[in-house]
Amino acid sequence: MSEAGATQRTGDGPLAVICGGGTLPFAVADAVGKRGRRVVLFAIRGWADPQRVAAYPHHWASFGQFGWFCRVAQREGCRDVVLIGSVVRPAIWKIRPDFKTLRLLPRIVGLLRGGDDRLLKGVAAIFEEHGFRLVGAHEIAPDILMPEGSLGREHPEARDYADIATGLALLDATSPFDVGQAVVVVDARVLAIEAAEGTDRMLARIAELRQGGRIAAATGRGVLVKAAKRGQDRRVDLPSIGPRTVEGAARAGLAGIAVVAGSTIIAEPELTGAAADRGRLFVIGVRDKMATR
Amino acid sequence: MSEAGATQRTGDGPLAVICGGGTLPFAVADAVGKRGRRVVLFAIRGWADPQRVAAYPHHWASFGQFGWFCRVAQREGCRDVVLIGSVVRPAIWKIRPDFKTLRLLPRIVGLLRGGDDRLLKGVAAIFEEHGFRLVGAHEIAPDILMPEGSLGREHPEARDYADIATGLALLDATSPFDVGQAVVVVDARVLAIEAAEGTDRMLARIAELRQGGRIAAATGRGVLVKAAKRGQDRRVDLPSIGPRTVEGAARAGLAGIAVVAGSTIIAEPELTGAAADRGRLFVIGVRDKMATR
Repeated sequence: MSEAGATQRTGDGPLAVICGGGTLPFAVADAVGKRGRRVVLFAIRGWADPQRVAAYPHHWASFGQFGWFCRVAQREGCRDVVLIGSVVRPAIWKIRPDFKTLRLLPRIVGLLRGGDDRLLKGVAAIFEEHGFRLVGAHEIAPDILMPEGSLGREHPEARDYADIATGLALLDATSPFDVGQAVVVVDARVLAIEAAEGTDRMLARIAELRQGGRIAAATGRGVLVKAAKRGQDRRVDLPSIGPRTVEGAARAGLAGIAVVAGSTIIAEPELTGAAADRGRLFVIGVRDKMATR
Repeated sequence: MSEAGATQRTGDGPLAVICGGGTLPFAVADAVGKRGRRVVLFAIRGWADPQRVAAYPHHWASFGQFGWFCRVAQREGCRDVVLIGSVVRPAIWKIRPDFKTLRLLPRIVGLLRGGDDRLLKGVAAIFEEHGFRLVGAHEIAPDILMPEGSLGREHPEARDYADIATGLALLDATSPFDVGQAVVVVDARVLAIEAAEGTDRMLARIAELRQGGRIAAATGRGVLVKAAKRGQDRRVDLPSIGPRTVEGAARAGLAGIAVVAGSTIIAEPELTGAAADRGRLFVIGVRDKMATR
């Protein structure tokens, strides 16, 4: 199996995890640690959770310290690097570049003008040129990927599948624009499309519109659909869901959540499933085939 | 010219204006009145502004009173009907239907499941079947359409034109999904796509994201792009902008607004131009050609 092959290929030496906000970095670190591999966190100041970081071997890092990162990661013996967790792209004038970063700055400025995918592909290339191997969380910890089928007790009905198909088709259409990876479809009507605000805020918007009487559909209708962009570099930016996503979908009055199986990271699957059952929502991994028909 | 032909063809008898919220209904009523045609407002309770309605011949109407509307409009001698102004689709259980509406209810329920365009096309068909002629505001008051070129003193720069082209192409891609008609593009990055929330809330979201440090681009960058959906029934739902749109775009820190000339309604053009100059934003009508290439 190629999946297993990839896992072995990247299996040598300790793993550097460049660690943004949220719980995903720790889910990855734990999954990799369980396989007996040493993990070193490079925790991004202002984003990574200090209390949780403290439980792992770690260094604190800031944007613009690429030269420092290269030195420290090499000293730690890390060749493989994972980038994971939430981070907002910093304003260029807020970066305090070290010497190596300074030399890369014109290139970075160019990358910051454009979508996330373009930025992340460019960042990946820079790591590779400096002798690192950028690996995806899904390669080194495939157990964090959402499987096919329902996570909890609830399952979609026929009308939910229609909404899921609409959502996947729409995400397919917006994919070339390097834009958000999530939409909300209720009774065949597209109520929200995610761009820079992120999934949590998009769900909060649906809850607000509903409270303001701007959504006529009954509660318990509609689906949050998430999918990776076509041609997206899966090593750096897979869509993810977790308990907070389920809680947000519940507050938005949706029937459930559908993601593409095998290319969506599921943080804390037990807690996510429990949240789904508590809110009586379905959380399902579907095949991407639905999008293309 | 076919435009002028259309204007004459719909020129007989008084005009019924079914009037939602905002200032657009009055802009249309004034433009039609100036041409010497009698206008009768059917003001929707809870949406139309009572103070402004009082200045015109009018009747107050509620959702579900289609039979009543048919009788009163016929008595007034109105054959031509314009639907204009903001309204949120009512929940079906909030409609108190009269007898005629009750008979149409199964059909209306079907229309409420789906996008705006489908709903409005269905509503148009119902009016036509009852002997009315649904006309577009752009047909009877072509002077309310945005012309080609800049409205105020400011003009787009080369990078703005790139953002405009991206926005138009994205709206073209989402068009088959009967979804929003507006996007915000900043430095080639799509920051927001409108769906059920409407343009004003989408702009407010950009302002919030900026305040929260989630948008790295400098202020005075980026464009709000609006365009009618392909195949949209122009009689019932053209995109529109006004002074409030300009103020929202200014608070969002954008460089300007681009709309498709000839198929966007501009409410209060003088005030809109003045707001643009005050905020140092451009407001431009562009050709749709940019979208296709």
